[in-house]
Amino acid sequence: MKAVVVKPPGAGVWIKEVQDPGDPQGRVRIRTLETGICGTDREIVNGRRLTTSPPPGREELILGHEAIGVVEEGDGIFREGDLVMPVNRRPCGKCLNCKAGRPDYCETGQFVQAGANSLDGFMREYWNDEPKYLVKVPPAVREFAILAQPLADVEKSVEEILTVQGRLIWNCEDGTLSCRKALVIGTGTTGLLFALLLKTEGMEVWVSNRREPREWEAKVFQEVGLNFLNSSKGYGGESFDLIVEASGSTAAVVGEALSSLRRNGVLGLFSFPREESFSLDHRGVQTFVMRANAIVGLVNGQKPHFQRAMVHLSAWNSIWPNAVRSMITKVVSVRDEGEVIRVLREKVRGEIKVKIDWT
Amino acid sequence: MKAVVVKPPGAGVWIKEVQDPGDPQGRVRIRTLETGICGTDREIVNGRRLTTSPPPGREELILGHEAIGVVEEGDGIFREGDLVMPVNRRPCGKCLNCKAGRPDYCETGQFVQAGANSLDGFMREYWNDEPKYLVKVPPAVREFAILAQPLADVEKSVEEILTVQGRLIWNCEDGTLSCRKALVIGTGTTGLLFALLLKTEGMEVWVSNRREPREWEAKVFQEVGLNFLNSSKGYGGESFDLIVEASGSTAAVVGEALSSLRRNGVLGLFSFPREESFSLDHRGVQTFVMRANAIVGLVNGQKPHFQRAMVHLSAWNSIWPNAVRSMITKVVSVRDEGEVIRVLREKVRGEIKVKIDWT
Amino acid sequence: MKAVVVKPPGAGVWIKEVQDPGDPQGRVRIRTLETGICGTDREIVNGRRLTTSPPPGREELILGHEAIGVVEEGDGIFREGDLVMPVNRRPCGKCLNCKAGRPDYCETGQFVQAGANSLDGFMREYWNDEPKYLVKVPPAVREFAILAQPLADVEKSVEEILTVQGRLIWNCEDGTLSCRKALVIGTGTTGLLFALLLKTEGMEVWVSNRREPREWEAKVFQEVGLNFLNSSKGYGGESFDLIVEASGSTAAVVGEALSSLRRNGVLGLFSFPREESFSLDHRGVQTFVMRANAIVGLVNGQKPHFQRAMVHLSAWNSIWPNAVRSMITKVVSVRDEGEVIRVLREKVRGEIKVKIDWT
Amino acid sequence: MKAVVVKPPGAGVWIKEVQDPGDPQGRVRIRTLETGICGTDREIVNGRRLTTSPPPGREELILGHEAIGVVEEGDGIFREGDLVMPVNRRPCGKCLNCKAGRPDYCETGQFVQAGANSLDGFMREYWNDEPKYLVKVPPAVREFAILAQPLADVEKSVEEILTVQGRLIWNCEDGTLSCRKALVIGTGTTGLLFALLLKTEGMEVWVSNRREPREWEAKVFQEVGLNFLNSSKGYGGESFDLIVEASGSTAAVVGEALSSLRRNGVLGLFSFPREESFSLDHRGVQTFVMRANAIVGLVNGQKPHFQRAMVHLSAWNSIWPNAVRSMITKVVSVRDEGEVIRVLREKVRGEIKVKIDWT
Repeated sequence: MKAVVVKPPGAGVWIKEVQDPGDPQGRVRIRTLETGICGTDREIVNGRRLTTSPPPGREELILGHEAIGVVEEGDGIFREGDLVMPVNRRPCGKCLNCKAGRPDYCETGQFVQAGANSLDGFMREYWNDEPKYLVKVPPAVREFAILAQPLADVEKSVEEILTVQGRLIWNCEDGTLSCRKALVIGTGTTGLLFALLLKTEGMEVWVSNRREPREWEAKVFQEVGLNFLNSSKGYGGESFDLIVEASGSTAAVVGEALSSLRRNGVLGLFSFPREESFSLDHRGVQTFVMRANAIVGLVNGQKPHFQRAMVHLSAWNSIWPNAVRSMITKVVSVRDEGEVIRVLREKVRGEIKVKIDWT
Repeated sequence: MKAVVVKPPGAGVWIKEVQDPGDPQGRVRIRTLETGICGTDREIVNGRRLTTSPPPGREELILGHEAIGVVEEGDGIFREGDLVMPVNRRPCGKCLNCKAGRPDYCETGQFVQAGANSLDGFMREYWNDEPKYLVKVPPAVREFAILAQPLADVEKSVEEILTVQGRLIWNCEDGTLSCRKALVIGTGTTGLLFALLLKTEGMEVWVSNRREPREWEAKVFQEVGLNFLNSSKGYGGESFDLIVEASGSTAAVVGEALSSLRRNGVLGLFSFPREESFSLDHRGVQTFVMRANAIVGLVNGQKPHFQRAMVHLSAWNSIWPNAVRSMITKVVSVRDEGEVIRVLREKVRGEIKVKIDWT
Repeated sequence: MKAVVVKPPGAGVWIKEVQDPGDPQGRVRIRTLETGICGTDREIVNGRRLTTSPPPGREELILGHEAIGVVEEGDGIFREGDLVMPVNRRPCGKCLNCKAGRPDYCETGQFVQAGANSLDGFMREYWNDEPKYLVKVPPAVREFAILAQPLADVEKSVEEILTVQGRLIWNCEDGTLSCRKALVIGTGTTGLLFALLLKTEGMEVWVSNRREPREWEAKVFQEVGLNFLNSSKGYGGESFDLIVEASGSTAAVVGEALSSLRRNGVLGLFSFPREESFSLDHRGVQTFVMRANAIVGLVNGQKPHFQRAMVHLSAWNSIWPNAVRSMITKVVSVRDEGEVIRVLREKVRGEIKVKIDWT
Repeated sequence: MKAVVVKPPGAGVWIKEVQDPGDPQGRVRIRTLETGICGTDREIVNGRRLTTSPPPGREELILGHEAIGVVEEGDGIFREGDLVMPVNRRPCGKCLNCKAGRPDYCETGQFVQAGANSLDGFMREYWNDEPKYLVKVPPAVREFAILAQPLADVEKSVEEILTVQGRLIWNCEDGTLSCRKALVIGTGTTGLLFALLLKTEGMEVWVSNRREPREWEAKVFQEVGLNFLNSSKGYGGESFDLIVEASGSTAAVVGEALSSLRRNGVLGLFSFPREESFSLDHRGVQTFVMRANAIVGLVNGQKPHFQRAMVHLSAWNSIWPNAVRSMITKVVSVRDEGEVIRVLREKVRGEIKVKIDWT
């Protein structure tokens, strides 16, 4: 069958016929409908993600960790015709967190990741999978359901942040989070998804970028009720209870963010900065301690987060239909191989989420 | 303006002109669009809820605790034209839980409840309110958004149950609640809302009644993926991790439920039984202890739960549109006063939720 | 070697020579110093605990689940001469809670219990054990350290109660539990241990019995700062935020306790009632719901609770030295076989904790 | 009466007669028995703590935030002759955390601190106080009970760290924290108290300093079972699940610590670094995110933590009597005014805790 393959850690990407890898433990047979492309895919394709590895004993890796498929042969839980999305990171089988279905907190580092680490991804016509790694996709949101994969990471992050803030009374006098002011740095896929989710959680949400918002972004901010902050000249003295770094720009952003945290405030680091350093002098450290601040590294959503992502996409479909639809900025047919290779190699101008149509 | 009034604790209900009570602290002016009727309203009307009381110094109480209105004069947060729903129970102002916006856990018992205890309700043309007691209603779900009031109680209940179960690892090996089997006793408004919410949380959900499901119920169960159990002859040996009593029938149900709880299982008591007793012999108590079971009394959702209710109604609007719409079984115009009085006095055959249209 | 054996589920108890069962997985060799006797042991001896079972393939079971020993052959963690106490309930190996070291929340019911269910106990001269089931005993508290086994159950119970109460803000305005009033029903071993622990947690603690306190009890209550309530005529209108049933008398106590719970209050059921029933009419159930009460079954402490028990015994050794010492009411030498059999068969008058000296 | 006063933010310290400030709200009259000296006191005395302020309308501030006194006039809870310790930070009265007795998480920054910010301290012969700010001191631990003030900060810190780690399953397969490896940087008062408390919590604990341990330290490490690490050449490749910075040396320590954190590990920042900066390049930030690490600023224990500190000191009195006694390295009589001034101005060689005897 047709598949998109890479040869990690080298650069390059190929569309070619591969043998069905079988996935012998996978009781559910799934035909791929679409796959999403994210920054990690491009890093792999361009040979810049050095930790990428093929399945044991092979040289090639099938790419892709964002996918929607349709069940062709099911089991008791998943039936023919069900739309499904696979969970991408899978357990090491050894540590307690993995045994409890939470390889996002794997302690051994021996988890595998579809399309990235030791496990084939989903950019292929078919795959077999185990029910425990599959999540149902509500047909009503299929158009933008591919967002559920990055959203799962965001769901897990917000869950984690709320646990960390649970060290104090973080609810406001009306019992909600209405008095809490959050800043999301970055307006890419995860930045926007964070903004939507934190707004859904009831916070006052700001998003920032180092430029003015584009027209379609302004519309989304208006629809959802987000505040925009052009951070090209800093945060203008605003301070926040929660800041999420989702820009993946420079490490220096960390320092700027820390200086804008309120007492008991938390900084969530989600994206990987690509350059530079951040530094904090001893006074900055003192302030961090005195303000009882926290920083937390945010990685990987698991099955409960994929499920919650589907619920939230379904809700947003009702209340912010334009916002979720705006985020699918391009669809490429797998038959247009040249274009597929192109979008895998480099970012499309104005892109939020690009997906490949396998039907 | 026109209002529906009662004279607690006596029986009787009148539609009459009342003076605008003013609600001097209410900065937001709201025009009522619709109000829902629930069992508590009928108990008040029929003089069977002895704890009902009018506002201090008055003899009449305006009825109604489920309402949707439109803002006519707003403030910074709520603007003209916004659809809003009021939170019905309000704090005592003294205990810590009330200060933290959680009069559902009021310790003094001095909270007030709109349309029930010392505070006028919303069955009137206008009311003024404070922003902290108002929740925005997404226009997309207005048709059935009145369900958000009972759903808020259900949201709070599920939150509480999950906290109680947090005493052990209750997540399953896939990190979700997929291995947990829940039974909801009763197929009225709250029974159905519990079933939808527990399904959304990822459990295997059963609903029971002492009769076969009606045709429209069977359709809802099918759409949502609920299992039905005719309990006229018991639970057929099934056992559950969670049982919610939402039938409000006889206290004897409590005993039946306890005997069907699995190890570490929890019984949530939501509805008020109307008759009989339940008893447990010393062996039953021993079993309860050995199985590490829990029972918890479930009351009253607050503002965070109303917000979550709106999110879930918005999601269900996408994924189970028929289920939520089926639950609005009758709409009566406030101009049809005879019919309003009738539906306030007695249950409509086949009723789930009846609402009064004030427009 | 010498051991105390029973032939479950039949009545009877024998002191006899047995072959060293080997315990092949036990890397640590321990010489028994002393073993405690509790009500469960007597139920087994008198053939009244029907669930008791010998190890697979055997007819006899070595009795005893409360023990202190000295290491004769150690490993990296436990060294020759270390005093140790074994954890008595051990995991099923299948469910997540057991995998996480918490067979107190075993889901399969296939855990084993030393001296009670499918595993030999510690009333023998030697045993071998795995380090993960052993807890160090501080030499300073050896005199009464046998209390750590029942105290571990109590530690787990209080941890569980605090989690359940975590559904609301249960801390008081000074951040402690000083405004919370607890009642412990029963003044046996576990009743007293609950009282000491709840006092240590900062609550106002009452203990009750259906008679006036004995002289030594009165001294303990005075030393610790406990209030006593003679419940032969009820609770005199007192109400409580927490009630723990630790009397193991009649099931009727449950009903009395429920009617004395404050709003949001919790009833913990620890002991097994021996007779009668309790019943609650529909009004009682309504009150339970309206007050947002909870009932929770409390079983079995695990290794973290044994560790915490050692810390608390060490603290009480400093602050309430008389109380902890008063609780060891009799020591019988294993060489006095007639007396050992006697104390295993029936309760000693005025007894709190009786132990057998194996040295 | 005699008092130790400073004139913040200027340098200098005086022992002089002052008028009894009255403390009109303080229903309990307390005679000071002893006061402890910590680094903050010396910073104030030497004019290096710029945020120090006298009570409103005054120029002088009575110093001292670590004290033990005896009640001379009590109330219902505290009686004549009771030993008490005051809580030093007190609420702003406005934010929810302060209303809940937790000014350690004050959101306004308007809390006051005895002997440091807008409230007189306890280096005086008498003070009056409110029961809610007083904690009972067990007579058995009076000799070293002054440690309960810094220990309260440490108790709060460990509570906070455990909440933050609660985002994953942090318990080990035996249900305890036995598989978790902690490093405490620094062997001063708080460093040692952290080490004792983390050991009590069941972890494998390492302490580090940039020199070899002194003889008495080595004895304490031996008694408690602590591992020592001479960090003058780094951490020798060791990695940790928890690192607490309690050295207050240079900010650069933060970077070293981060690079030694295991997956899901947490760095607690307790002490104020006095010089230098730390920096992290973009790869370091990536590693922090991928490892799901966290950093948390740790400040101020409140009344529940003082109570827990008393429990732990009482336990350590039994199990590590030498360790706790070793930490009181000097006692100066208040009558030896020259020596009092001297120890307030500069650190005593080999000092852990110096206290002033007011009797």
